Amino acid sequence: MSDATSPLLTDLYQLNMMQAYLDHGETKTAVFEFFVRKLPTERGFLVAAGLEQALDFLENLHFSAEEIEWLAHSGRFSRELLDYLAKLRFTGDVHAMPEGTVFFANEPILRVTAALPEAQLVETRLINILHFQTLIASKAARMRLVAPGKLLVDFGLRRAHGSEAGIMAARASYIAGFAGTATVLAEKQFGIPTFGTMAHSFIQAYDDETSAFENFARSRPQNLTLLIDTYDTEAAARKVVALAPRLKALGIQIRAVRLDSGDMITLSKNVRRILDEGGLTDVTIFASGGLDEENITEMLRSGAPIDGFGIGTSLTTSSDMPALDCAYKLQEYAGLPRRKRSAGKATWPGRKQVWRRYGPDGRMVGDILSIEGDRKVGEPLIGLVMQGGRRISSSPTLAETRARAAREFERLPEPLRRLEPGASYPVQVADALVKLEAEVDSRLAQQELARR
Amino acid sequence: MSDATSPLLTDLYQLNMMQAYLDHGETKTAVFEFFVRKLPTERGFLVAAGLEQALDFLENLHFSAEEIEWLAHSGRFSRELLDYLAKLRFTGDVHAMPEGTVFFANEPILRVTAALPEAQLVETRLINILHFQTLIASKAARMRLVAPGKLLVDFGLRRAHGSEAGIMAARASYIAGFAGTATVLAEKQFGIPTFGTMAHSFIQAYDDETSAFENFARSRPQNLTLLIDTYDTEAAARKVVALAPRLKALGIQIRAVRLDSGDMITLSKNVRRILDEGGLTDVTIFASGGLDEENITEMLRSGAPIDGFGIGTSLTTSSDMPALDCAYKLQEYAGLPRRKRSAGKATWPGRKQVWRRYGPDGRMVGDILSIEGDRKVGEPLIGLVMQGGRRISSSPTLAETRARAAREFERLPEPLRRLEPGASYPVQVADALVKLEAEVDSRLAQQELARR
Repeated sequence: MSDATSPLLTDLYQLNMMQAYLDHGETKTAVFEFFVRKLPTERGFLVAAGLEQALDFLENLHFSAEEIEWLAHSGRFSRELLDYLAKLRFTGDVHAMPEGTVFFANEPILRVTAALPEAQLVETRLINILHFQTLIASKAARMRLVAPGKLLVDFGLRRAHGSEAGIMAARASYIAGFAGTATVLAEKQFGIPTFGTMAHSFIQAYDDETSAFENFARSRPQNLTLLIDTYDTEAAARKVVALAPRLKALGIQIRAVRLDSGDMITLSKNVRRILDEGGLTDVTIFASGGLDEENITEMLRSGAPIDGFGIGTSLTTSSDMPALDCAYKLQEYAGLPRRKRSAGKATWPGRKQVWRRYGPDGRMVGDILSIEGDRKVGEPLIGLVMQGGRRISSSPTLAETRARAAREFERLPEPLRRLEPGASYPVQVADALVKLEAEVDSRLAQQELARR
Repeated sequence: MSDATSPLLTDLYQLNMMQAYLDHGETKTAVFEFFVRKLPTERGFLVAAGLEQALDFLENLHFSAEEIEWLAHSGRFSRELLDYLAKLRFTGDVHAMPEGTVFFANEPILRVTAALPEAQLVETRLINILHFQTLIASKAARMRLVAPGKLLVDFGLRRAHGSEAGIMAARASYIAGFAGTATVLAEKQFGIPTFGTMAHSFIQAYDDETSAFENFARSRPQNLTLLIDTYDTEAAARKVVALAPRLKALGIQIRAVRLDSGDMITLSKNVRRILDEGGLTDVTIFASGGLDEENITEMLRSGAPIDGFGIGTSLTTSSDMPALDCAYKLQEYAGLPRRKRSAGKATWPGRKQVWRRYGPDGRMVGDILSIEGDRKVGEPLIGLVMQGGRRISSSPTLAETRARAAREFERLPEPLRRLEPGASYPVQVADALVKLEAEVDSRLAQQELARR
């Protein structure tokens, strides 16, 4: 499959630009920032994620001899550029918001300060890494908020967009408060708890559903969850009730039943009644199949007695909004602030900081976007995490990041917490930034005049 | 990052079920099929893709000693299962539709015939591989069909869901007729042509736009494309006209200008006029930025003089429909056909074949879905590609697969080719399959009765 660590995971234009930068000596210090231009109407807030993998990428960036040879063979690049690439390591600084931090439009979550060619090359993959985990953490947060106290599990590897998406969605959703994932490699790689039940194929391999349940129970007695919708959900629930005493005699306790299709509200109520009447009041009901924050909200509002949810496609593809309008833009070069003025995509220049204020109840009340060094009231969200290409300290653990996200959700203004459509959050642009923008425009205008 | 070849890229329940299968001797031959349950209203047809990577996965499937040790350490599995996994290779057969084939709901594009535990383990990753490339090839086909004769280039790595999604989207869109991609690794890995222009950061690094154009042109004179929307698109087009003679004197020809923001219809017309009046009639216009098959259709209908399109997010995330309702289901076990009857997710049992008929004009007129061996009129679409865990012949080249897809698009019924909303295609279920379904249901009913 593809090599996820290759520096060739980039757009050709990055290499073209590096060639031109080198040819013309444009290797001075550049400052790029990664931010989301505007929030989609489907998202009142976003959750920063992916920084760990972004820093891994930067720390390990290098071209192998074989990659250099392949580039040389393409005939596109000068020997000077190839030699530069062969020696290239990322030697810049990175400032960032910690993973798990809530953020809004135009607030950078990552800043790269490095020689222009270095900072340019890494654009594509940095966006690729930060965009995806932020997208998924922000989606997962919604599910976490609508189902407090419920067990939420990522079931989405199969329809995630490739292997990396599957693994990183497990990570991002865990940060946002999921209990775990079905993806085994996510446990091995990140220590994320895994959950596993049984598939329809297991039931189908037996002509008789009860035999399937019993054989599975004997082999997998721990945390036993039986899938009951293969043929007739309520009939299967009655089979579970009939089977329970026989399993109990073997010391096996049924922990849950899983519903994966049909009208979940009606079925969960009927199954709950069948289980309770059969004395299985401790057996919980776990639902899966086409779930998202909308239908989970509806189920819980209708009093569906469901204790946990396995969420797949809508989580790992962020299906209602599978991409964010994000960018990694040059904000300063050779000591001068820069900006882009393209229609609908203009950017604020310079190195930025975000100051967040909290009310007496601890809830967020507003942010100020300003330039670095322009001290404002509140908590500064962006800090140095990498210097000269090396992390300045060990990263927070995944548990710490998860705890941070949970605390952030507690501090959200109530309309955002409730996912109210149209709920917004005040982000004020500081005078210093407005002034800097005017200075950049005036400098550019003078250049234009000078040229004529 | 994640290891894309690990067999632990699977759901925990697959390992749980394998344990139970082994404990109870359920290791007889199973037949699973991968298919899409129903087509979303946004898609009149789908394009099969990903088979190559699916076969690579199956041929290379094995657990490393370190993975076995990790599983052992988890304490979840028996020594017997761990020994089985340590020796596991995929030894089954695979039947499939060739990549690039158009297909419809309920038509399997892949069938696995293998010992039940083997066939079960591979479910998650097979779906993950086939679903994504099929999703993207099907999306890319729409773009190809609305813009005949136009240069289409994948620009979507940065917002693809991870590295694998980026690379495989380049592959899938190339199969569907894109000219190439911006992703360098896709050229190295698959020989897909790459295209690269310049970014706004390049322009911004210079205070003066013309200097940026000129320096870039001197360094990258081949296929020179200048990005003209950083500040003022029409002003930049006039700068291009002014610069052209100076570049021409250096032997450098401008091939294209790129628009990346604003009202593309108006801008492209104005830029075309500026270029033409400046004598640059050979310079083409390339557009990018938030494009999809809808707005490309609108631009072309409005006579926008755009020659090529760089398409990113909407392509590599299939943004209007980021997942397909696909499944990998047990259709036969131990010589007996099987089916699932879950509400809304019932499946047709048995090993299937799809027969496709064509009209006198060579266009597809209808498919018949039947069981293997039930010979029908038309072309059978599913054939053996892997036997005993090995490919039976070398795979088609990517060029051959691309040519197949192009031929398939030629043969689509006109309403599907025109992407008419609601256009459908007749897929008839053969009597033999209906009869087989009744037999399965009757067998299951008898088992139920016998049990009471």
